[in-house]
Amino acid sequence: MPISNSPKPILFLHGFWHGSWCWADVLARVTGAGARALAVDMAGHGLLARRPEALTRRPFDPGLLATEVSPVADVDLDQAGDLLVSQLEQLAGGNPVVVVAHSMGGAVLSRAAQLAPELVAHAVYLTAFMPASGVPSVAYPQLPENEGSLTDAAFVADPAVIGALRIDVASGDPAYRQRLRAALYGDIDPAAADAAIALLTPDAPAGIALGATTLTQGGWGSVPRTYVRCTQDFTIRPALQQKFIADADAAFPANLTLVHTLDSSHSPFLSMPGQVADIALKLIH
Amino acid sequence: MPISNSPKPILFLHGFWHGSWCWADVLARVTGAGARALAVDMAGHGLLARRPEALTRRPFDPGLLATEVSPVADVDLDQAGDLLVSQLEQLAGGNPVVVVAHSMGGAVLSRAAQLAPELVAHAVYLTAFMPASGVPSVAYPQLPENEGSLTDAAFVADPAVIGALRIDVASGDPAYRQRLRAALYGDIDPAAADAAIALLTPDAPAGIALGATTLTQGGWGSVPRTYVRCTQDFTIRPALQQKFIADADAAFPANLTLVHTLDSSHSPFLSMPGQVADIALKLIH
Repeated sequence: MPISNSPKPILFLHGFWHGSWCWADVLARVTGAGARALAVDMAGHGLLARRPEALTRRPFDPGLLATEVSPVADVDLDQAGDLLVSQLEQLAGGNPVVVVAHSMGGAVLSRAAQLAPELVAHAVYLTAFMPASGVPSVAYPQLPENEGSLTDAAFVADPAVIGALRIDVASGDPAYRQRLRAALYGDIDPAAADAAIALLTPDAPAGIALGATTLTQGGWGSVPRTYVRCTQDFTIRPALQQKFIADADAAFPANLTLVHTLDSSHSPFLSMPGQVADIALKLIH
Repeated sequence: MPISNSPKPILFLHGFWHGSWCWADVLARVTGAGARALAVDMAGHGLLARRPEALTRRPFDPGLLATEVSPVADVDLDQAGDLLVSQLEQLAGGNPVVVVAHSMGGAVLSRAAQLAPELVAHAVYLTAFMPASGVPSVAYPQLPENEGSLTDAAFVADPAVIGALRIDVASGDPAYRQRLRAALYGDIDPAAADAAIALLTPDAPAGIALGATTLTQGGWGSVPRTYVRCTQDFTIRPALQQKFIADADAAFPANLTLVHTLDSSHSPFLSMPGQVADIALKLIH
């Protein structure tokens, strides 16, 4: 167990469709700088993912892909938040951790920080959902502030029908693949982006986006936070990122958001791993 | 940078088809115990993988899958070994690292340890290839000691034609999927095994298995090593694991292999992550 004045460990939580694998470059840098760091899988993702049968059905049946109920339709924000709390406890035995969350990982981080603020030394939202108190993440993507987002157009099924935000990670359609790359990996070499797409889980649990967390002064409101804006993000557009910051600061004016800005796509862990690592490393002492 | 008497960091290197993601449970345990640890992608794997187009071709064309030259056909043991050396240097700045390598990761570890023995505090072969001096890994799977191995039967193309050991990770054929699970994940819940299969890269570069390393007394022979035997392994059978140990000890009798035994399938990082973590943790001080 670390002694109390030793550097704090860092936990990285990916967003929808991703897994612990997406932080490999960032982890190499932070551990290389001497930090203790861990990337975890979100509930329903990575080694905890469950995939629709339609993706291994030959011949391929797009109708089935559009209607098959997701095997992760039962995963919700309660489960995801509880899992993150247990991951934080396992990493630091009750001592505080610097947590870096990407995209929908932000909603999970907010839940965990509200449940157990003593476990979160600093909450870093890397172009992430940072929903206001009581507001589910699903309320945000359709706002005017998110105009120009390309992600919803990649969905191949109705989330209300299948219980998941489903993307066709095995599509060979060049136009569809280009759309996925533009939404998630716009500033990344296409070959590297394709390697990432191959590792995505097709189904992100809708229940995580439907969940909301009541944020309190003594809970989430007491945790120092940083928001890393990404100006070339075509999933969570910069104006929506700014709204998350503005709403949080209005609700908790005694604990304002620290803001960094990267000229990055939605996935700076791939395009700017050094900058992401540096932001996290400055918070561990 | 760590001071010289601080605990050594641990680097985990996966085997063919896997990626950094496969160590998530082990990493949670070793970092939770206070260690600094990192899992990396092998050359041609994980975020460095390249996949055949045949896997995203609809309708699916098994003939194409059997003949398409692999996009990782140019990856060889030289490249994989050099990458591991640079990953070790990045992690510890030239200080020694405990390295845990699984399956074909062992051949890469042997190369790196021969190139830069000063970077490897202890080499742990987790049911891994530990080839004798000058012998390529490809020479071992067909030996009598590996009778009963199920892995080769999962190949869907001739490695000599396509330059890779190709498995059909997107197959929906229940018999084929069962064969993959039996070869790699025999003691793992089928749903968890399916999550792992979905993250495998289909093409493992044949060039890594074709490469050999000349082992010297002052190079690989000077590095302390542990072999973790897995008694239920149907990829590298126990008798072949024992041959790796016996041959190494015969060649380097002044530096004998320390041996642990787990009653595990080929993938103890999934079925016995606590035991794998404990073996690594005992070596960091």
